[in-house]
Amino acid sequence: MIYLDNSATTKPYKEVLDSFLKVSEDFFGNPSSLHKIGGQAEKLLQQARSQVGKLLNVKETEILFTSGGTESNNLAVKGIAMAHRERGRHIITTSIEHASIHNAMVQLESLGFEITYVKPDGNGFISADSIGREMRDVTILVSVIHVNNEVGTIQPIEEIGSLLKKYPKAFFHVDFVQGVGKVPLDFYEAGIHLSTISGHKFHGVKGTGALFIKEGVRLSPLFSGGNQEWKQRSGTENVAGMVAMAKALRMTFEQRKEKLNQMEAAMERLRSGISQIKEITVHTPMENRAPHILNFSIKGLKAETFVHALEEKDIYVSTTSACSSKKKAASKTLLAMGVPRDEAESAIRVSLTYSNTIEEAELAAKAIAETVKHLSEVVKK
Amino acid sequence: MIYLDNSATTKPYKEVLDSFLKVSEDFFGNPSSLHKIGGQAEKLLQQARSQVGKLLNVKETEILFTSGGTESNNLAVKGIAMAHRERGRHIITTSIEHASIHNAMVQLESLGFEITYVKPDGNGFISADSIGREMRDVTILVSVIHVNNEVGTIQPIEEIGSLLKKYPKAFFHVDFVQGVGKVPLDFYEAGIHLSTISGHKFHGVKGTGALFIKEGVRLSPLFSGGNQEWKQRSGTENVAGMVAMAKALRMTFEQRKEKLNQMEAAMERLRSGISQIKEITVHTPMENRAPHILNFSIKGLKAETFVHALEEKDIYVSTTSACSSKKKAASKTLLAMGVPRDEAESAIRVSLTYSNTIEEAELAAKAIAETVKHLSEVVKK
Repeated sequence: MIYLDNSATTKPYKEVLDSFLKVSEDFFGNPSSLHKIGGQAEKLLQQARSQVGKLLNVKETEILFTSGGTESNNLAVKGIAMAHRERGRHIITTSIEHASIHNAMVQLESLGFEITYVKPDGNGFISADSIGREMRDVTILVSVIHVNNEVGTIQPIEEIGSLLKKYPKAFFHVDFVQGVGKVPLDFYEAGIHLSTISGHKFHGVKGTGALFIKEGVRLSPLFSGGNQEWKQRSGTENVAGMVAMAKALRMTFEQRKEKLNQMEAAMERLRSGISQIKEITVHTPMENRAPHILNFSIKGLKAETFVHALEEKDIYVSTTSACSSKKKAASKTLLAMGVPRDEAESAIRVSLTYSNTIEEAELAAKAIAETVKHLSEVVKK
Repeated sequence: MIYLDNSATTKPYKEVLDSFLKVSEDFFGNPSSLHKIGGQAEKLLQQARSQVGKLLNVKETEILFTSGGTESNNLAVKGIAMAHRERGRHIITTSIEHASIHNAMVQLESLGFEITYVKPDGNGFISADSIGREMRDVTILVSVIHVNNEVGTIQPIEEIGSLLKKYPKAFFHVDFVQGVGKVPLDFYEAGIHLSTISGHKFHGVKGTGALFIKEGVRLSPLFSGGNQEWKQRSGTENVAGMVAMAKALRMTFEQRKEKLNQMEAAMERLRSGISQIKEITVHTPMENRAPHILNFSIKGLKAETFVHALEEKDIYVSTTSACSSKKKAASKTLLAMGVPRDEAESAIRVSLTYSNTIEEAELAAKAIAETVKHLSEVVKK
């Protein structure tokens, strides 16, 4: 099996599952319980929080544990909107966000908020200037994706953050789900107030995530209750899941040190192989893009047909983001970039992780070429 | 170790962890992915949903998977409130709900909803009549706990549901977290529209839960995004967690058949032993109470001191609900029942599961008697 859909989800590391199991069996207490069975669980949770904080270069008290990227994104956006709505009801985001940001914004519109969706240029980049032009006195939040999940472009987060320093009333949220462990980002330096990560995107287990909330930033919780997680996210903490996520994050950072070159070489091999296929247009630019995502269209072929044809060769790629793939809609990011609809509908996303090898890339490029050739002939008949 | 805090959390069954591990390793795909790695995960998720539906006697399409009881309770209450706010802004609940209902209601008050908190009688029971008296034309939701988490009283859910049939505009939500697997409840017969369960309360893993949403009931999601879970709860599904929860539910139902008598006998032994201690007042009534929860106060002793003294004997009990235990607040349910504050502050909750034996109950009753005697002598000095 050659699994090249790591932006949809990753296989949990063996050691991560071992930790999950160990904690679930031996430290099953409720961290809120007063007795020592609870205390042991609480200690593990605190260690996981401290570890995540250290790896992300922030204070452990700024890490809030959640059930995943979608929860973190919704909590950030709706939590800020509802807590600060008296100060202003204008929010800026982009037209190339993940569905969990986009649809949260749509829901806020129905509650009386005004949302500005900034468009990218033809290469998929949002400029700091284009954000700056939309800033108003009543803008309470700017939310921008770091590494775009469909084409892999890296947005100029530091520049946007720098610009936003002139607007102390606006909070800055960054969806870091695709970037974490792949493309470094310093939350403090970039002037970020909130940032989202998701455990299963870096070999943790599903149902785990975190939201960085800068000290002093107040938001309205989605989950009210027992006041866990600094009163901002109630509910019994998924201790085993969070210990597993902390371990996955640490291992991913280590993998990056050891294997970034290998992954880059694999991507280079894949890209150069694919670029030679005349039916293929590559959408991911050469510069300012993440090392693990490649997006391209195949002229005259339906993306879904291509995914299934490739799976016959035990190679797994994706059409658009997993969350949207069943709707069979065209990639939202490509449309925003001005790619024609038929081309956007034939888009394929390949996404790597550190364990993918150059050999796999070689085999995949070859299989893609063969499949394009074969399917194109079928279509012509 | 004698663990008698099963209403706070339970130890996951070995077989449940085996399932979690197997799914995480061998079926790690994103259920939303088009390829077969995704398809396999989706199939497992669907099987888990079907199993939970069957066990709860409802359609699988009425089961929505969540990250736990707190999420389910918040989604039910806020989701109905936000989706139906144009029809009315009055909600009825009780003063003996879990914090995740109570604090969600408080948050809704700040958003312009009016909440009526119905009080229990001196034994901890809410009468259907007392709900009926508060019903208005603009009441959109009634939310009542099934088995109270602090004292174990079973509320007359069927009677309340029957009364609510006269009010077709009001939805009926039931917090079934403490009841499921311990005290049967038929959602359809009781006229329930929404009901909450939490995996880690019946030997599943933490971070898993479900919300029953009767066919046709519409709510506003807390998580917007990729439109998973019938568009009412976006986010990549925790496939392994949900398969584990379905297995835990099935095993708990089997345990009930085999071991309910044993658990009842253990509770009886505990209760009769404790009742002989003159410093102790038992708050859990004899009738209409769950088989696994016993709440009592110890005259002149602080609950926290008692919990720690008992943990020295490797026996684990709770003060109030785990979610509230660190606040060291008096039990809300006991106060609502009219128990004096000093007595409510010295309340202890013992909660069993099917693996607890009569021998454990015997040892615990003896240890409680010794500890009361010892601590009372210390206090008198």
